[in-house]
Amino acid sequence: MVAVPASLEKLCINSIRMLAVDAVNKSNSGHPGLPMGCAPMGYSLWDKFLKHNPKNPEWFNRDRFVLSAGHGCMLLYALLHLTGYDSVTIEDIKQFRQWGSRTPGHPETFETAGVEVTTGPLGAGISNAVGLAIAESHLAAKFNKPDSTIVDHFTYVIMGDGCNQEGVSKEACSLAGHLKLGKLIALYDDNQITIDGRTEVSFTEDVLKRYEAYGWHVQHVADGNNDINSISKAIETAKSITNKPSIIKISTTIGFGSPNKSDTAGVHGAPLGEEEATLTRKQLEWEHAPFEIPQEVYNHYQKAIERGSQLENEWNKKLANYRLKYPDEAAEFERMLRNELPQSWDKSLPSYSSEDKGLATRKHSQICLGALGPNLPELIGGSADLTHSNYTDIQGETGSFQAETRSKRYLHFGVREHAMAAILNGIAYHKSGLIPYGGTFLVFADYMRGSMRLSALSGLGVIYVLTHDSIGVGEDGPTHQPVETIPSLRAIPNMLVFRPGDGNETSGAYKLAVQNRNRPSALCLSRQGMANQANSSIDKVALGGYVLEDCQGQAELILIGTGSELDLCVQAAKKLTASGKKVRVVSMPCVELFEEQSESYKQEVLPPSIRKRLVVEAASGFGWHKYIGLDGDSVTMTSFGASAPGGVCMEKFGFTVENVLSKANSLLES
Amino acid sequence: MVAVPASLEKLCINSIRMLAVDAVNKSNSGHPGLPMGCAPMGYSLWDKFLKHNPKNPEWFNRDRFVLSAGHGCMLLYALLHLTGYDSVTIEDIKQFRQWGSRTPGHPETFETAGVEVTTGPLGAGISNAVGLAIAESHLAAKFNKPDSTIVDHFTYVIMGDGCNQEGVSKEACSLAGHLKLGKLIALYDDNQITIDGRTEVSFTEDVLKRYEAYGWHVQHVADGNNDINSISKAIETAKSITNKPSIIKISTTIGFGSPNKSDTAGVHGAPLGEEEATLTRKQLEWEHAPFEIPQEVYNHYQKAIERGSQLENEWNKKLANYRLKYPDEAAEFERMLRNELPQSWDKSLPSYSSEDKGLATRKHSQICLGALGPNLPELIGGSADLTHSNYTDIQGETGSFQAETRSKRYLHFGVREHAMAAILNGIAYHKSGLIPYGGTFLVFADYMRGSMRLSALSGLGVIYVLTHDSIGVGEDGPTHQPVETIPSLRAIPNMLVFRPGDGNETSGAYKLAVQNRNRPSALCLSRQGMANQANSSIDKVALGGYVLEDCQGQAELILIGTGSELDLCVQAAKKLTASGKKVRVVSMPCVELFEEQSESYKQEVLPPSIRKRLVVEAASGFGWHKYIGLDGDSVTMTSFGASAPGGVCMEKFGFTVENVLSKANSLLES
Repeated sequence: MVAVPASLEKLCINSIRMLAVDAVNKSNSGHPGLPMGCAPMGYSLWDKFLKHNPKNPEWFNRDRFVLSAGHGCMLLYALLHLTGYDSVTIEDIKQFRQWGSRTPGHPETFETAGVEVTTGPLGAGISNAVGLAIAESHLAAKFNKPDSTIVDHFTYVIMGDGCNQEGVSKEACSLAGHLKLGKLIALYDDNQITIDGRTEVSFTEDVLKRYEAYGWHVQHVADGNNDINSISKAIETAKSITNKPSIIKISTTIGFGSPNKSDTAGVHGAPLGEEEATLTRKQLEWEHAPFEIPQEVYNHYQKAIERGSQLENEWNKKLANYRLKYPDEAAEFERMLRNELPQSWDKSLPSYSSEDKGLATRKHSQICLGALGPNLPELIGGSADLTHSNYTDIQGETGSFQAETRSKRYLHFGVREHAMAAILNGIAYHKSGLIPYGGTFLVFADYMRGSMRLSALSGLGVIYVLTHDSIGVGEDGPTHQPVETIPSLRAIPNMLVFRPGDGNETSGAYKLAVQNRNRPSALCLSRQGMANQANSSIDKVALGGYVLEDCQGQAELILIGTGSELDLCVQAAKKLTASGKKVRVVSMPCVELFEEQSESYKQEVLPPSIRKRLVVEAASGFGWHKYIGLDGDSVTMTSFGASAPGGVCMEKFGFTVENVLSKANSLLES
Repeated sequence: MVAVPASLEKLCINSIRMLAVDAVNKSNSGHPGLPMGCAPMGYSLWDKFLKHNPKNPEWFNRDRFVLSAGHGCMLLYALLHLTGYDSVTIEDIKQFRQWGSRTPGHPETFETAGVEVTTGPLGAGISNAVGLAIAESHLAAKFNKPDSTIVDHFTYVIMGDGCNQEGVSKEACSLAGHLKLGKLIALYDDNQITIDGRTEVSFTEDVLKRYEAYGWHVQHVADGNNDINSISKAIETAKSITNKPSIIKISTTIGFGSPNKSDTAGVHGAPLGEEEATLTRKQLEWEHAPFEIPQEVYNHYQKAIERGSQLENEWNKKLANYRLKYPDEAAEFERMLRNELPQSWDKSLPSYSSEDKGLATRKHSQICLGALGPNLPELIGGSADLTHSNYTDIQGETGSFQAETRSKRYLHFGVREHAMAAILNGIAYHKSGLIPYGGTFLVFADYMRGSMRLSALSGLGVIYVLTHDSIGVGEDGPTHQPVETIPSLRAIPNMLVFRPGDGNETSGAYKLAVQNRNRPSALCLSRQGMANQANSSIDKVALGGYVLEDCQGQAELILIGTGSELDLCVQAAKKLTASGKKVRVVSMPCVELFEEQSESYKQEVLPPSIRKRLVVEAASGFGWHKYIGLDGDSVTMTSFGASAPGGVCMEKFGFTVENVLSKANSLLES
């Protein structure tokens, strides 16, 4: 490393600080405190360590950088700008937090090239980073050869006190320690200020001791405001520790440089204002106008472009060599990077006829995972300690991803649902073709909802395997019986919520979940068995909803069912037909996909003139009026469940053919 | 303490084990492993330490016991039964997990007297216990006198590996350490087994070191299967440590006594079966038939009845004495225990006219808290580090609940939303009249949803103050802008979701939230200002929805609005009226309360014949078709938001008078 003159380093660091001050002042909104305090560590990391190519932000083998404290996004935008990313020009910075800009109020992957992870909800970023590090180490174990290392990068994080207080980070970092993810390095901005004031009002634990308890390597840099040398040495040491993740606590002053606001909560999330900005310029000896950066600063930072290009070229050569020596592995690796599914990946997904024995859809799900496993090597996932309830294992495979067995693809997340979801997101953010899935009970989707939302917002093709999807759970009782969970998931934009009604629909749901690489899928699966339908098929699931059973001529009544209640509709329809009624049964395994069909198709399935509609779903009916309107009715849940055998619960809460018939007849007579 | 003969202790402990084995076998469902492993600590704690009165489970000054590992409920049911609670007879145990029984699959406060906390979702119970301990120490500081201690009990917890992996427990225990809750004692059942197998597959951190980092006192009992003496000594020591919460790691064998299934995941959540039960009887030298408990065991355990009665009598005497010496405090204390609100508690809740300056409803909320504060001393709460954004402070009060200032009622939860919700639940579970509230951004309701669900399920009157309730958040962008959150909350049974549209409606929402002591309320409040309406009132909020503005004669169109969009409806209605249309505006601050009104009232507000209905709400429209049916329309969100000033977001996403008019006119012309 060539020594950089102290005066230039100071300018480089203050460039970050002043871009943050000026951008937040101009937009009159934002968080200047963190970028001002973290500028030294940001400079040190990005200038001396980060392996990246500003002119190709998508270069695969780059180090990943996650700003877990996403509110400090001006730190990231400043670094992207200064190091020469085309995605963040000085004009973009002037448009900070404005409509349509590439510099939104928190970093968003889908807005700004170079942003690896959408952050803002605290604790999520560091947890995503655990997923990035898992992805890297898994691919390294899978593809690297003794003479050829094509997967090899670090994952760096800057996190704050907030991230360290959030439960999700604690779950994820505990797992990271267990997995000995040696290439994960977190820089902890210890500024001792949160929004409510000094951390001493609520957060006085010994953070590093806690990380030690997780099995991390820990270091402390006492003067993170000035001591670039110590920061750099600590990062160097962290890189050298390969059998443990590392955390470096770097004590800083929030809003460093602001004479009146530094070290106060006031500088966390509010503009400095013109006057204080002037005083800050003075204190930092910064002689430049807003948004004006000295050319020597650009010149220095933008050495990253040459370095990055060189690094990428070297890697390209390595890859070319690898291609020659290991053509099969290279083909697979490059196919994955192209985000291209293998040929015939879905060939083993099973179809069923109504003669086939009815199973629980969680069991069908297990069969699907077993069928996909050999044909879809990029499938990687597991369960939050419910493997033998969720049936998330890939049949025929043994062993799991552990420190010593990193090529394995089964993940034991432990009883850590929220971290699981965040880690699945992290694996997806790695953008290396891996298809992450994870299982828990549907009711515990609540625990990971913060990260499920981010899957949807960031367009990540995560597959959530959510079993025990209704009061059919039975004896475990209302704490374990989802009632409102399905509608709550359906309310999330950009997420596919499947509730398959038999084996074919489960295979179809898996097919669509795998194909949808730019949005998450939630598979809601039963604990209990259900019949296979005569007229379901894998392909029909793509329509979201379709006519499963129909009558001659115009129907008087439409029964709409999903999941384990689909067969109730079919049985009731048979009886109604026998008594001379004209009834149609619509299966609706995915409301969102149905919504995406043409108006004419939707009207074909649910003709506007047929207003007698009855929905049957063992969940809250919230949301179903979109299809039943003011004139329809429903057999749904209006309360929490109860502890009793699943069949008893179903009966007591009205999920019987008799009750469906009774409601249907009332509608027909109305 | 009188020594108990070892042979009798053994019988007492094995009684728990065998009740668990036999109940789970009979119901063919349940979790025998934990009760078998934890029987010694359960016996030791309940027999030697727990201060309770089996014949009056509601006696205020009892120790609180929380089985955080709720799946092990047979441990708790066995202890309740053996110590003489009327709520759990041997017949109840035979009905384990059956419809209508008092012994559901996880402990539920509303089913079984003596169950302090509904548990099952892991991590929740220990976090509730932090709330119980906060409640105890707050009331002790508030009511106890140097010569009179009327509030004085411990909070005991049994937690497992699962609880220790969940993020919520880590948030709560970090805060408990900060707050130095010396009367919180957790027994950690370290059995090294989770559902996926041995904990070594995912959970190898040094748990006690982590708790030390939080500031807890830690101990380890190496042989929790046999060494009653060490367990008891450790509890004794924990009780003597008054300036720190305590955790005692007690190493046990899951399913202890079962020769073939102990120490395996197989005994965690499945019946032993008849054959293994026979072998277990043999191994434990248990000579009794299923559900048969030796009389000497009952005789010994039920000394708790005499002890409890004596303890309660002594306390009653203390209270009588306190009543004489401190009549005012006693009156207040006893009023709180009766769950009775003070006279005129709501007298200062402000009303507004349309002349009054429009404010953000978060600001109105702050005014309400300030108005309630002096008149409602049982109000206790705070924010998850967003005090100055949520405006959750009680104006006129300073200081917060800290180790040295326990009589203060403001809680700094730190950046720990999930723990906040669980702690609020814990305060409510204390059943001492305290009214807990807590604030965060609405979008982060996702982080605490697991515990919000439990507020609803257990019927706890927690008040959630959820500000920044739409894209009106503005610059912070889509990670911070709720879209699906409001419908997701409305989907939860037994929860009131308020979205007030002005000052009167905010006062009304607070009034109802305080009055509803048996269900939670979620107050969704704006960041931005809005006008005060001419025809709103505090009392009308109780109707859930009401006619805010009406036309002469029958309306052609009904506009339905909530929160910050209510005024858009009013403005649009004015323009429509001016152009000769007949329009009604319905304000719907609480859908759930509207649903509870009579059919005739609901039909009066929304006459079935008027099908042209337009809802305006800056959230996902999911759920609104219940009121707009197949023929209405909506101005709602169909995607995530964006980063830009709030007003710009509102405009770009169509929340303008013009757009409402345009949709209204389309409906009128259809």
